[in-house]
Amino acid sequence: MSGAGSFLQQSRIEDTFWTRIRETARREGIPYQWKALNDQVPGAEPSYCMKNFRIAAGRETGTHGGYIFQDSDIAKWIEGAAFSLRWHPDPDLEEVIDRAVDEVVDAQQPDGYLDTYYIINGLEKRWTNLKDNHELYCAGHMIEGAVAYYQVTGKRKLLDAVIRLVDHIDSVLGPEPEKLHGYPGHPVIEMALMRLYAVTRDPKHLKLAKYFVDQRGQAPLYFREEDERNHNHFYWKDSYFQYQYYQAGLPLREQTEAQGHAVRAMYLFSGAADVARETGDSGLADACRRLWKNTVQRRMYVTGSIGSSEYGEAFTFDYDLPNDTIYGETCAAIGLVFFARRMLALEAKSEYADVMERALYNGVISGMQLDGKRFFYVNPLEVLPEACEKDHAKCRVKVERQKWFGCACCPPNLIRLVSSLEDYIYSCARRDLYVHLYVGGSLNTFVGGKPVRVGVQTNYPWDGNIRFSIGTETPVAFALRLRIPGWCEKYTLTVNGSPEKSPVVDGYAVIDRTWQDGDRVELALDMPVSLIHANPRVYEDAGKVAVSRGPLVYCLEEADNGRNLHSVRLGNGRAESFSAEWKPDKLGGIVELRSPGIRETDTGWGETLYSSINRIESDPVVLTWIPYYSWANRDPGEMRVWIRE
Amino acid sequence: MSGAGSFLQQSRIEDTFWTRIRETARREGIPYQWKALNDQVPGAEPSYCMKNFRIAAGRETGTHGGYIFQDSDIAKWIEGAAFSLRWHPDPDLEEVIDRAVDEVVDAQQPDGYLDTYYIINGLEKRWTNLKDNHELYCAGHMIEGAVAYYQVTGKRKLLDAVIRLVDHIDSVLGPEPEKLHGYPGHPVIEMALMRLYAVTRDPKHLKLAKYFVDQRGQAPLYFREEDERNHNHFYWKDSYFQYQYYQAGLPLREQTEAQGHAVRAMYLFSGAADVARETGDSGLADACRRLWKNTVQRRMYVTGSIGSSEYGEAFTFDYDLPNDTIYGETCAAIGLVFFARRMLALEAKSEYADVMERALYNGVISGMQLDGKRFFYVNPLEVLPEACEKDHAKCRVKVERQKWFGCACCPPNLIRLVSSLEDYIYSCARRDLYVHLYVGGSLNTFVGGKPVRVGVQTNYPWDGNIRFSIGTETPVAFALRLRIPGWCEKYTLTVNGSPEKSPVVDGYAVIDRTWQDGDRVELALDMPVSLIHANPRVYEDAGKVAVSRGPLVYCLEEADNGRNLHSVRLGNGRAESFSAEWKPDKLGGIVELRSPGIRETDTGWGETLYSSINRIESDPVVLTWIPYYSWANRDPGEMRVWIRE
Repeated sequence: MSGAGSFLQQSRIEDTFWTRIRETARREGIPYQWKALNDQVPGAEPSYCMKNFRIAAGRETGTHGGYIFQDSDIAKWIEGAAFSLRWHPDPDLEEVIDRAVDEVVDAQQPDGYLDTYYIINGLEKRWTNLKDNHELYCAGHMIEGAVAYYQVTGKRKLLDAVIRLVDHIDSVLGPEPEKLHGYPGHPVIEMALMRLYAVTRDPKHLKLAKYFVDQRGQAPLYFREEDERNHNHFYWKDSYFQYQYYQAGLPLREQTEAQGHAVRAMYLFSGAADVARETGDSGLADACRRLWKNTVQRRMYVTGSIGSSEYGEAFTFDYDLPNDTIYGETCAAIGLVFFARRMLALEAKSEYADVMERALYNGVISGMQLDGKRFFYVNPLEVLPEACEKDHAKCRVKVERQKWFGCACCPPNLIRLVSSLEDYIYSCARRDLYVHLYVGGSLNTFVGGKPVRVGVQTNYPWDGNIRFSIGTETPVAFALRLRIPGWCEKYTLTVNGSPEKSPVVDGYAVIDRTWQDGDRVELALDMPVSLIHANPRVYEDAGKVAVSRGPLVYCLEEADNGRNLHSVRLGNGRAESFSAEWKPDKLGGIVELRSPGIRETDTGWGETLYSSINRIESDPVVLTWIPYYSWANRDPGEMRVWIRE
Repeated sequence: MSGAGSFLQQSRIEDTFWTRIRETARREGIPYQWKALNDQVPGAEPSYCMKNFRIAAGRETGTHGGYIFQDSDIAKWIEGAAFSLRWHPDPDLEEVIDRAVDEVVDAQQPDGYLDTYYIINGLEKRWTNLKDNHELYCAGHMIEGAVAYYQVTGKRKLLDAVIRLVDHIDSVLGPEPEKLHGYPGHPVIEMALMRLYAVTRDPKHLKLAKYFVDQRGQAPLYFREEDERNHNHFYWKDSYFQYQYYQAGLPLREQTEAQGHAVRAMYLFSGAADVARETGDSGLADACRRLWKNTVQRRMYVTGSIGSSEYGEAFTFDYDLPNDTIYGETCAAIGLVFFARRMLALEAKSEYADVMERALYNGVISGMQLDGKRFFYVNPLEVLPEACEKDHAKCRVKVERQKWFGCACCPPNLIRLVSSLEDYIYSCARRDLYVHLYVGGSLNTFVGGKPVRVGVQTNYPWDGNIRFSIGTETPVAFALRLRIPGWCEKYTLTVNGSPEKSPVVDGYAVIDRTWQDGDRVELALDMPVSLIHANPRVYEDAGKVAVSRGPLVYCLEEADNGRNLHSVRLGNGRAESFSAEWKPDKLGGIVELRSPGIRETDTGWGETLYSSINRIESDPVVLTWIPYYSWANRDPGEMRVWIRE
């Protein structure tokens, strides 16, 4: 099995759908978050993030504020802001980032250590609670920020700082007898080290990433010994998942199920897939494949969200996908996108890109308000506002996005992802050029050593027509591999206006030819409305359907359909009875769907609670469906994805 | 509106259905609990209950063990055991109770105070946290135990002790300026004082009960002031229900909804109904009626269980009745029975007796295993064992009854209720003799001053035929009022073999005549299977039906129907397609139901999680239904009450 190769960053996005989201993130999110990190947002919980760095550097006095992992917020912000410079150069922003980098590096210790919590509270306590205290998590994000900033600007200050930090980490942790045999309680450094390795090619960086992947969960369990040695508290001792919360109950190669904290799982699996690809470790690749399958075949919502339980922000068990007590953290869906891209790089199968697309267009971007000013942690598929207020089991589900969070992982994570969307669209392996996502714009790259330009025009996801134009200096032979999405049952493909019968290999239509400058390819994906059923083992969705069109999952909202959405059923089971209309002024521009529906009324019930006479009456209604990602952008109200047939 | 009068205790139960349950409670429950209270059950959590009394009396040394309200366990046990003596005299048990009474009274202080927690930990701290520390709750239960034991045996030792205790309470709490203006965080003493008043007719006892009902929730709020004064912790400060957890957010007369802790609500409402009846306070009666309606019309499960949320063991909001994250505490259903009986005494309407019956035959007795050795706190209407283990939101729902609980409120509560079932069947007001429940046995009473004996023969709830025989010394004119249950759509009534066209008044068929010795009345209630729909506003039950027959709600269990009960639908919507068969050897003897059903299979799905092609295939199956109360008496497995139509 060969992978889809390296993802290509030299592309430019000019796309109706994504440009709006990316511009919103850039114009609103990045400056807003910078203010938040500097405690300058009136009414929001203070972050303390930058203040912590100044205190750690001795420039201010005070105590460490916010979460123990507060440093990671500036790291993610730097990464997102750096990515935005790639497609929107902005000297003012670059100067702000430079200032941020100065403040961060200013706090670094002579031995390379960099974590404001321990610098402020006493370095003698560092490395005593890898399980909970996030030193390696913060380091991982700082590495990712540093690599991104270096790749975009060529500036090495933060990169050099994290290289010193990694040297320090490598001196403390590792398999050698004199070192601690620990690993992070919250993975991310594995991916980060692989990104660093891609820049430095320093074998130490690969070796450390591989060590973290392999050492995790080995007996005797480091976290248990660490707890005993340092009298740390084991918060999950009464939980079902135990050390699997930390992805440490078993070595990854022995795991068969996605368990515990969903974000930690995704980050670890992503790092492991990177290591497997780089080292050609087929056993590790098999483990990643097994965990991928369990995640997406049994534990993923139709929106690409994952994590069924608020408790532990965790996976629960196969086919347990409650729509209203879901956690479905934005960061977890983002983590699934990371994992999907890395599995694609391992093996070029469209199932990975299908999931990547599902998460991106639904459970990821649902995390951000259309105006970019508010964010969801939890992305439910069913919301009853009164229940969120009055039923404790649902109180983590919010009906409105929040301004900022004390634990602010999701907003900067979302911004760094959409700001780097270029990196998810194309990949190249030898003479194969893959197109995984359909996003308008262009790509300048080399295939088989020769320069190739690909232009893409599309109105995706609102329709399924994608036009490619090829630009070459001289004719180039290569295989253009276009993903035929899993949701697409019918499509046509033409090259220079002539129908093309291309073989479909692993979900990609392969057009293998010698390309001339000016060649045109048109892919027309049929994009009717689909009625989705869940596997009958998903007990929460039994007897229900979800509605989708192309990559977008739709939902019913109270703003369009009134209250008591549980009383609404589909008018008939035919997808053909749906109509689709472009509404430029609604919710930032959407294709709205309408369908016949049935609304059960309580006429005749009065105050009867239970009745052996079936008093249920129904009225025909017209249902109005909007894309899931756009929910909760009007007055707060009910929302449902799965409705009764 | 006139009430159903006083409930009559001079009856004898000889009934297939109830005798088994009562005998189990007597033979297994009472001795087992006595052992438990004395820490003599191997493997069970120690109770510390009796040990606390001995320490408080200075006969042993040690610290107080168990919950702060552990004293109430012996009080409830005394009450239940006392009731059992009424229908099963047992000198050995009576001696044990005497010994228990000795140990309890031994700990009483010279000023009448009696609460082992404060006696052991320092009397100077007593009465500083009425909100949480249960002194008045324990006192209330002790009063109830004392009254019952006195009424059954004539022994005054415990009665006199609680009268001294009440004198002490009355000296500390009350409306007078020099007293604390407090009231119990957990009601029960209101009912208890009314029972004491029925024995003593001491106006002080009525006055104190009325004070507790009226003072509750008045501004300035006592609990808030008490918290400030004594630096008590307000555990529910982030909750939705706030002081309504304690039923203290508002004066009861201003409340319109059943809120907060469900057991506390029922106990308070019951005491308030007692006070309203005794004092003829129509405003208070109106408040009780309003709270009754809200409870049973919008917040009660079809099994008579109440309390939708584990958090706070509480009510949530109208029509919020989740079947799998339910609390549905056994004690709360028992409290609903208490409340129902008191509302009946206030006004003779069958709706109260209907609810009493619904709770008794379903959500109350489901709390006890058929062998009387294990108990449920939580009584779910839908159980998936894997979810109870792996989904934290459902972890309070158990698939098996438990041996004993550290907080052991439910087992003795259940035992005292079934042991005193006599008190719920008949009531008499002037020349009206009401029969509220159909339980085989006999009643010796006076109607209009003349002795009357009523014999009842029935196989209820397995069939609806009830035969009454009247015994009199001389002819007596009175109205026999027989409840026509809400579930019954058709019935016949004969007197001495001749059809009787009796008017039905407030749900009771009224046979008003001059009765001769030997008169026979036969009531034949048609008892077909009913398919129950919930009000469409109950979103958790939309598109679903429950099955009942007579007063019994039925369920599907894995032991009969295999796993994945969510995949099962009714074969057709016709109750006539059900068959009923008496199974003497199954689950202690039940009428089992069978019906056509449809089981959706996952054939053809493989590892597909979502599909736009409807792959759902169905097989016809025969469904086997058992009475809800009898679930979880075989191997642990799935169970469902509401299934898809």
